[in-house]
Amino acid sequence: MRQNEKPISRTVLFYIAMFCLCGLGLMWVLKRGAQLESHPINTPVASVLEVKSVGITSALEANLRQPLGLLLLQLLVVLAATRGVGALFRKWKQPLVIGEMVAGIMLGPSLLGWLFPGITKAVFPDASLETLSMMSQLGVILFMFSVGAELEINHLKRWAKTSLVISHAGIAIPFVLGSALALVLYRPLAPPSASFVVFALFMGVGMSFTAFPVLARIIEERGLGNTPLGNTAITCAAIEDVTAWSLLALIITIAKSASPASILIAVVLTLLFAGAMLYLVKPSLARLLAHSETEPFREHRALGICLFLVLGAAFCTQAIGIYVLFGAFLAGAILPRDPRLITLVKEKLATLSSNLLLPLFFAFTGLRTQVGLLGDVTAWGYTLAIIGTAIAGKLGGCYIAARWSGMTRLDAFTVGSLMNTRGLVELIVLNIGYDLGVFSPSIFAMLVLMALATTLMTSPLLSLTERWRR
Amino acid sequence: MRQNEKPISRTVLFYIAMFCLCGLGLMWVLKRGAQLESHPINTPVASVLEVKSVGITSALEANLRQPLGLLLLQLLVVLAATRGVGALFRKWKQPLVIGEMVAGIMLGPSLLGWLFPGITKAVFPDASLETLSMMSQLGVILFMFSVGAELEINHLKRWAKTSLVISHAGIAIPFVLGSALALVLYRPLAPPSASFVVFALFMGVGMSFTAFPVLARIIEERGLGNTPLGNTAITCAAIEDVTAWSLLALIITIAKSASPASILIAVVLTLLFAGAMLYLVKPSLARLLAHSETEPFREHRALGICLFLVLGAAFCTQAIGIYVLFGAFLAGAILPRDPRLITLVKEKLATLSSNLLLPLFFAFTGLRTQVGLLGDVTAWGYTLAIIGTAIAGKLGGCYIAARWSGMTRLDAFTVGSLMNTRGLVELIVLNIGYDLGVFSPSIFAMLVLMALATTLMTSPLLSLTERWRR
Repeated sequence: MRQNEKPISRTVLFYIAMFCLCGLGLMWVLKRGAQLESHPINTPVASVLEVKSVGITSALEANLRQPLGLLLLQLLVVLAATRGVGALFRKWKQPLVIGEMVAGIMLGPSLLGWLFPGITKAVFPDASLETLSMMSQLGVILFMFSVGAELEINHLKRWAKTSLVISHAGIAIPFVLGSALALVLYRPLAPPSASFVVFALFMGVGMSFTAFPVLARIIEERGLGNTPLGNTAITCAAIEDVTAWSLLALIITIAKSASPASILIAVVLTLLFAGAMLYLVKPSLARLLAHSETEPFREHRALGICLFLVLGAAFCTQAIGIYVLFGAFLAGAILPRDPRLITLVKEKLATLSSNLLLPLFFAFTGLRTQVGLLGDVTAWGYTLAIIGTAIAGKLGGCYIAARWSGMTRLDAFTVGSLMNTRGLVELIVLNIGYDLGVFSPSIFAMLVLMALATTLMTSPLLSLTERWRR
Repeated sequence: MRQNEKPISRTVLFYIAMFCLCGLGLMWVLKRGAQLESHPINTPVASVLEVKSVGITSALEANLRQPLGLLLLQLLVVLAATRGVGALFRKWKQPLVIGEMVAGIMLGPSLLGWLFPGITKAVFPDASLETLSMMSQLGVILFMFSVGAELEINHLKRWAKTSLVISHAGIAIPFVLGSALALVLYRPLAPPSASFVVFALFMGVGMSFTAFPVLARIIEERGLGNTPLGNTAITCAAIEDVTAWSLLALIITIAKSASPASILIAVVLTLLFAGAMLYLVKPSLARLLAHSETEPFREHRALGICLFLVLGAAFCTQAIGIYVLFGAFLAGAILPRDPRLITLVKEKLATLSSNLLLPLFFAFTGLRTQVGLLGDVTAWGYTLAIIGTAIAGKLGGCYIAARWSGMTRLDAFTVGSLMNTRGLVELIVLNIGYDLGVFSPSIFAMLVLMALATTLMTSPLLSLTERWRR
């Protein structure tokens, strides 16, 4: 085409002529059309939108008060806070998640809302929280799916003996200690809607979680990835994850159900769901997603199947009444361990959700956390008791079990320190308790601080063990 | 550790002992705690959640009526429809987007809502549309960002001469024809809130868009990627995109503003914004994202910068009052053309949004499209007139300009057919018109059908030219 291109002047001529003609045409159309306006008062469109022309500022404000403008503002604020504080904590050799947790709390009534209540109210008005909550939930669902997909099932088989004991000790012991603590905390802190049994069970389960993803990242960062110690810790965390989420599903059922019969129904339905996922969905998935090494990986198709799987599983668990995240986690765990598939889920599907939607979850949790409620010495005493119990139960429990199964003191302490990391997973569990009305705002704030403290201490503790080793 | 592992019996013993002890401990705690319940009536948590234990079905229903359950259901339905119909149309050698457009229309009042109005009302109740709309908007914002990032700016320089004339002819001619058609359609179809000028301008701009991403995909699928013809077409579409979005921004300003002064302010602000993006943000981006070839690509950082950029630009355009997508598109267009960065945006950032959020946009458009409104022969006559004008203006306009600049008849026809593809971009523009109150539901339905028809005909037309070539 370039070869037989006509001289440029001819093209320019055409261009100018076209514009003149079209311009004239448009003018004629608009002139003719003016006669068509037979509407009694020629209302400008602006009036429909209720934009008043009273200066720039008010017009700008009106544009921003629309839901989309507000959502964009919220996303920007949350991103700036989590990224900024996250970068700060990273400088101090802390995992990113700590910074994000702290940033969320800073946006809520504990800092920003306390210093400038007007700003928090303007950026996060109550009416906008529904959309924000939905988006953050979607982020957490996809996050749990990728946690399930990351689960090292092969490890689970190879390192099972020792790890099973350690991880179950790391659930049972903090669980009992947590529920014993409930004896002290129930009277002063439990909301009137929560019965003691439910409160105690939630306090117990709230102590028993380990942040699998944070732990996995710390192990990688510290170069423990392929050591027996690192493998044991990863396997412990994996077993712990499966056990603790199943336990939580049961406790949620007990908390929500009014009668023993409905608890039984929910348990049966959950078992049926888990059975169907493991024995019907898992084999068909393997067939659907089967690929020979030479065949190109059909990404669009695999993405569709993954999305159906995770949304469908989340939907089923929501219908049963246990938590959506149980389904999302199970969906990830039954994915075929094709490395291309796991990479797709971890690196492509989860990119947007972990960079944009998950920070919303931290902000959402922060908006609920009122550190200001811990006004007096007693409250801070309770908080310290909770943190102490959590550490004693988890770090201590894992240490004892690890020593008993023959580990050295240093190794046992390292595994215990790693398992003590609560991270984001703990925040998810606390929010479930809050939504169910089991936790009051003040005990919620205390438990959030516990999650922060136990996550914060992991890196220093590990540095300590490294120094001891030398 | 494995070597000096203690005999298994010892571990089993510990495990059993631990469980017995912890079990007894928990029982004691729960028994003691029962005395603590001093609340007058021991309300079970269930009552807080208003779940009544009247059988499984109603419990399931209650769980699903919660916003998260509904959202999951909507996502599943939309995914199933777009994926299913998309696969069907793919079999017929049509681009995926056609299937997704049709699926969206099928979910709305045109098919599902007409056959089973109860289902549409139950799955997409009005109260849930706000969240759905926000999520689909976010999807479209990220989509426009990746369209901008895909924009072949180097092509733009190399093939500019011919392409500029063709693409501007492909805007000016359908624009004038579309606004001339408004002379006929204004009286019977325009909503009372729209003045003739605004209606005619929107009819014009509605005819002038080309679906850049659909066109790019078709060119790739047909193996035209590196031919002069394919390059000219891609460049035409790129120039068209930039021009048409700028034009739309201007027309939206005219539509929204009550006085000439506020139009002027918006235009000045838009120019300031575009200038700042091009001359301040673009150079700093290049510096922020600069990487030597050997250095590892810092993905987390790049993702953060991209998200800030696109959300910030969208926020600014929302504040000015032109459409958010103008900002998102510009943000993509000024990204440094580092291939790793473009891959990151296209393949990672956009994966979730184009697979999950964008289908919501099709569904959202479909829920507004009431093909049933075209009840009589006159309405279908108008629809045909609109489709005819759109084709004559775009395909015809581009053909004439291409012939004039020296292309063969066959090449000119091929370029015209490609530029005639409306696709998703057209739906975005139509929704803007609908939101502004410029399009009535019936003319909205007609224009959606026009978008469908022009997208649908591209593949057959190209197959025709291929047969002629042989």
